[in-house]
Amino acid sequence: MSESAESYVVGEVDVARWEQFGLGDVMPFNAMWYTVPPGVSSPRDCHPELELSVVISGTAAVETGGTITEVAKGSCFLLDSEEAHVIHNRSTDEPVMVFTTYWMPLGSTPDAVVAGEGTR
Amino acid sequence: MSESAESYVVGEVDVARWEQFGLGDVMPFNAMWYTVPPGVSSPRDCHPELELSVVISGTAAVETGGTITEVAKGSCFLLDSEEAHVIHNRSTDEPVMVFTTYWMPLGSTPDAVVAGEGTR
Repeated sequence: MSESAESYVVGEVDVARWEQFGLGDVMPFNAMWYTVPPGVSSPRDCHPELELSVVISGTAAVETGGTITEVAKGSCFLLDSEEAHVIHNRSTDEPVMVFTTYWMPLGSTPDAVVAGEGTR
Repeated sequence: MSESAESYVVGEVDVARWEQFGLGDVMPFNAMWYTVPPGVSSPRDCHPELELSVVISGTAAVETGGTITEVAKGSCFLLDSEEAHVIHNRSTDEPVMVFTTYWMPLGSTPDAVVAGEGTR
Protein backbone atom coordinates (compact mmCIF):
# COMPACT_ATOMS: atom_id res chain seq x y z
CA MET A 1 0.00 0.00 0.00
CA SER A 2 1.37 3.39 -0.88
CA GLU A 3 -0.47 6.58 -0.01
CA SER A 4 0.17 10.27 0.13
CA ALA A 5 -0.86 11.89 3.39
CA GLU A 6 -3.50 14.61 3.38
CA SER A 7 -2.36 17.64 5.32
CA TYR A 8 -3.95 20.72 6.86
CA VAL A 9 -2.68 24.00 8.21
CA VAL A 10 -2.33 25.14 11.85
CA GLY A 11 -1.32 28.80 11.74
CA GLU A 12 1.49 28.64 9.19
CA VAL A 13 2.43 25.05 10.05
CA ASP A 14 1.48 22.24 7.69
CA VAL A 15 0.36 19.10 9.53
CA ALA A 16 -0.30 15.55 8.26
CA ARG A 17 -1.56 13.07 10.83
CA TRP A 18 -1.32 9.28 10.69
CA GLU A 19 -4.89 8.83 11.93
CA GLN A 20 -5.99 9.06 8.28
CA PHE A 21 -4.40 5.66 7.61
CA GLY A 22 -6.67 3.92 10.15
CA LEU A 23 -3.84 2.14 11.92
CA GLY A 24 -4.84 3.04 15.48
CA ASP A 25 -5.43 -0.61 16.36
CA VAL A 26 -1.92 -1.72 15.38
CA MET A 27 0.15 1.21 16.67
CA PRO A 28 0.72 2.04 20.37
CA PHE A 29 1.18 5.72 19.51
CA ASN A 30 -0.01 8.35 17.05
CA ALA A 31 2.22 10.00 14.51
CA MET A 32 2.32 13.04 12.26
CA TRP A 33 4.55 15.09 10.05
CA TYR A 34 4.69 18.86 10.36
CA THR A 35 6.53 21.52 8.42
CA VAL A 36 7.51 24.96 9.76
CA PRO A 37 8.34 27.40 6.93
CA PRO A 38 11.53 29.52 7.03
CA GLY A 39 11.34 32.34 9.56
CA VAL A 40 8.17 30.96 11.17
CA SER A 41 7.48 29.72 14.71
CA SER A 42 4.83 27.11 15.50
CA PRO A 43 1.96 28.05 17.79
CA ARG A 44 2.82 27.30 21.45
CA ASP A 45 1.65 23.75 22.14
CA CYS A 46 1.10 21.91 25.42
CA HIS A 47 -0.68 18.58 25.82
CA PRO A 48 -0.76 15.51 28.07
CA GLU A 49 0.88 13.26 25.45
CA LEU A 50 4.63 12.72 25.48
CA GLU A 51 6.21 13.41 22.11
CA LEU A 52 9.27 11.94 20.40
CA SER A 53 10.28 13.77 17.24
CA VAL A 54 12.94 13.36 14.59
CA VAL A 55 14.03 16.24 12.39
CA ILE A 56 13.94 15.35 8.68
CA SER A 57 14.89 18.70 7.12
CA GLY A 58 16.50 21.84 8.45
CA THR A 59 17.31 22.64 12.06
CA ALA A 60 14.50 22.93 14.60
CA ALA A 61 15.02 25.49 17.37
CA VAL A 62 12.97 23.85 20.13
CA GLU A 63 11.86 26.23 22.89
CA THR A 64 10.84 24.75 26.24
CA GLY A 65 10.89 26.46 29.63
CA GLY A 66 12.56 29.56 28.25
CA THR A 67 15.45 27.59 26.74
CA ILE A 68 16.05 27.00 23.03
CA THR A 69 17.77 23.80 21.90
CA GLU A 70 18.90 23.44 18.30
CA VAL A 71 18.03 20.03 16.89
CA ALA A 72 19.69 19.29 13.56
CA LYS A 73 18.46 17.03 10.78
CA GLY A 74 18.58 13.38 11.84
CA SER A 75 18.45 14.14 15.59
CA CYS A 76 15.52 13.52 17.90
CA PHE A 77 13.93 15.40 20.77
CA LEU A 78 11.64 14.04 23.47
CA LEU A 79 9.04 16.28 25.13
CA ASP A 80 7.47 15.33 28.42
CA SER A 81 3.77 15.29 29.18
CA GLU A 82 2.49 18.87 29.57
CA GLU A 83 5.85 20.32 28.53
CA ALA A 84 4.96 23.50 26.63
CA HIS A 85 6.91 23.93 23.42
CA VAL A 86 7.39 26.17 20.41
CA ILE A 87 9.29 25.09 17.30
CA HIS A 88 11.13 27.94 15.63
CA ASN A 89 12.61 27.82 12.16
CA ARG A 90 15.40 30.41 12.16
CA SER A 91 16.48 29.64 8.61
CA THR A 92 15.69 32.14 5.87
CA ASP A 93 15.32 29.55 3.14
CA GLU A 94 14.94 25.97 4.40
CA PRO A 95 11.71 24.49 5.79
CA VAL A 96 11.92 22.52 9.04
CA MET A 97 10.19 19.16 8.56
CA VAL A 98 9.61 16.97 11.60
CA PHE A 99 8.17 13.48 12.01
CA THR A 100 6.72 13.07 15.46
CA THR A 101 5.20 10.27 17.52
CA TYR A 102 3.04 10.92 20.59
CA TRP A 103 1.29 8.88 23.26
CA MET A 104 -0.37 9.25 26.64
CA PRO A 105 1.84 8.67 29.71
CA LEU A 106 2.20 4.92 30.39
CA GLY A 107 0.25 3.42 33.25
CA SER A 108 -0.86 6.81 34.40
CA THR A 109 -4.04 7.31 36.35
CA PRO A 110 -5.66 10.74 36.55
CA ASP A 111 -4.59 12.44 39.80
CA ALA A 112 -8.16 12.92 40.96
CA VAL A 113 -8.87 9.16 40.87
CA VAL A 114 -5.74 8.25 42.81
CA ALA A 115 -6.45 10.91 45.42
CA GLY A 116 -10.03 9.69 45.74
CA GLU A 117 -8.98 6.11 46.47
CA GLY A 118 -6.33 7.23 48.94
CA THR A 119 -8.73 9.31 51.02
CA ARG A 120 -11.50 6.73 51.47
CA MET B 1 19.50 16.73 28.18
CA SER B 2 21.45 16.38 24.97
CA GLU B 3 23.31 13.22 24.10
CA SER B 4 24.97 11.62 21.14
CA ALA B 5 23.87 8.06 20.50
CA GLU B 6 26.44 5.27 20.60
CA SER B 7 26.20 3.08 17.54
CA TYR B 8 27.39 -0.37 16.48
CA VAL B 9 27.68 -2.22 13.21
CA VAL B 10 25.51 -5.07 11.85
CA GLY B 11 27.16 -6.24 8.62
CA GLU B 12 27.80 -2.90 6.93
CA VAL B 13 24.84 -1.19 8.57
CA ASP B 14 25.42 1.30 11.38
CA VAL B 15 22.81 0.99 14.18
CA ALA B 16 22.08 3.26 17.17
CA ARG B 17 19.37 2.08 19.54
CA TRP B 18 17.30 4.21 21.91
CA GLU B 19 17.59 1.64 24.71
CA GLN B 20 20.84 3.38 25.70
CA PHE B 21 18.85 6.39 26.90
CA GLY B 22 16.98 4.31 29.50
CA LEU B 23 13.53 5.54 28.47
CA GLY B 24 11.83 2.14 28.26
CA ASP B 25 9.42 3.03 31.06
CA VAL B 26 8.11 6.15 29.35
CA MET B 27 7.92 4.94 25.73
CA PRO B 28 5.42 2.34 24.41
CA PHE B 29 7.88 1.36 21.67
CA ASN B 30 11.60 1.06 20.99
CA ALA B 31 13.44 3.17 18.48
CA MET B 32 16.69 3.24 16.57
CA TRP B 33 18.54 4.92 13.75
CA TYR B 34 20.30 2.91 11.09
CA THR B 35 22.42 3.90 8.13
CA VAL B 36 22.91 1.83 4.96
CA PRO B 37 25.97 2.99 2.99
CA PRO B 38 25.75 3.60 -0.80
CA GLY B 39 25.52 0.37 -2.80
CA VAL B 40 24.88 -1.75 0.30
CA SER B 41 21.89 -3.91 1.31
CA SER B 42 20.98 -4.58 4.93
CA PRO B 43 20.99 -8.18 6.18
CA ARG B 44 17.54 -9.79 5.72
CA ASP B 45 15.58 -9.13 8.90
CA CYS B 46 12.41 -10.73 10.24
CA HIS B 47 11.03 -10.31 13.76
CA PRO B 48 7.74 -10.34 15.68
CA GLU B 49 7.77 -6.58 16.24
CA LEU B 50 5.91 -4.27 13.86
CA GLU B 51 8.11 -1.48 12.57
CA LEU B 52 7.30 2.08 11.47
CA SER B 53 10.21 3.84 9.79
CA VAL B 54 10.84 7.29 8.38
CA VAL B 55 13.57 7.94 5.84
CA ILE B 56 15.84 10.84 6.84
CA SER B 57 18.41 10.74 4.03
CA GLY B 58 18.51 9.16 0.62
CA THR B 59 15.95 6.76 -0.85
CA ALA B 60 15.41 3.36 0.77
CA ALA B 61 14.57 0.50 -1.61
CA VAL B 62 12.48 -1.65 0.74
CA GLU B 63 12.22 -5.30 -0.31
CA THR B 64 9.37 -7.38 1.13
CA GLY B 65 7.79 -10.50 -0.38
CA GLY B 66 9.81 -10.19 -3.58
CA THR B 67 8.67 -6.60 -4.22
CA ILE B 68 10.81 -3.50 -3.91
CA THR B 69 9.20 -0.20 -2.90
CA GLU B 70 11.17 3.02 -3.15
CA VAL B 71 10.70 5.20 -0.07
CA ALA B 72 12.05 8.72 -0.47
CA LYS B 73 13.36 11.04 2.21
CA GLY B 74 10.56 12.21 4.48
CA SER B 75 8.28 9.24 3.72
CA CYS B 76 7.45 6.38 6.06
CA PHE B 77 7.01 2.64 5.69
CA LEU B 78 5.24 0.25 8.02
CA LEU B 79 6.31 -3.40 8.27
CA ASP B 80 4.01 -6.01 9.74
CA SER B 81 4.97 -8.52 12.41
CA GLU B 82 7.15 -11.26 10.89
CA GLU B 83 7.33 -9.45 7.55
CA ALA B 84 10.81 -10.23 6.24
CA HIS B 85 12.60 -7.19 4.81
CA VAL B 86 15.83 -6.04 3.23
CA ILE B 87 16.73 -2.36 2.87
CA HIS B 88 18.77 -1.64 -0.25
CA ASN B 89 20.63 1.56 -0.93
CA ARG B 90 20.91 1.79 -4.72
CA SER B 91 22.64 5.17 -4.65
CA THR B 92 26.32 5.34 -5.48
CA ASP B 93 27.06 8.27 -3.24
CA GLU B 94 24.35 8.99 -0.65
CA PRO B 95 23.85 7.02 2.58
CA VAL B 96 20.31 5.93 3.45
CA MET B 97 19.53 6.97 7.02
CA VAL B 98 16.35 5.69 8.64
CA PHE B 99 14.74 6.37 12.01
CA THR B 100 12.57 3.46 13.03
CA THR B 101 10.15 2.63 15.84
CA TYR B 102 9.15 -0.94 16.70
CA TRP B 103 6.81 -2.68 19.11
CA MET B 104 5.22 -6.06 19.74
CA PRO B 105 1.75 -6.63 18.22
CA LEU B 106 -0.94 -5.08 20.42
CA GLY B 107 -3.01 -7.45 22.52
CA SER B 108 -1.57 -10.39 20.65
CA THR B 109 -1.40 -13.91 22.01
CA PRO B 110 1.19 -16.33 20.62
CA ASP B 111 -0.35 -18.54 17.92
CA ALA B 112 0.49 -21.73 19.80
CA VAL B 113 -1.55 -20.65 22.82
CA VAL B 114 -4.60 -19.69 20.78
CA ALA B 115 -4.48 -22.97 18.84
CA GLY B 116 -4.14 -24.90 22.07
CA GLU B 117 -7.27 -23.35 23.55
CA GLY B 118 -9.25 -23.91 20.35
CA THR B 119 -8.53 -27.65 20.18
CA ARG B 120 -9.39 -28.56 23.76
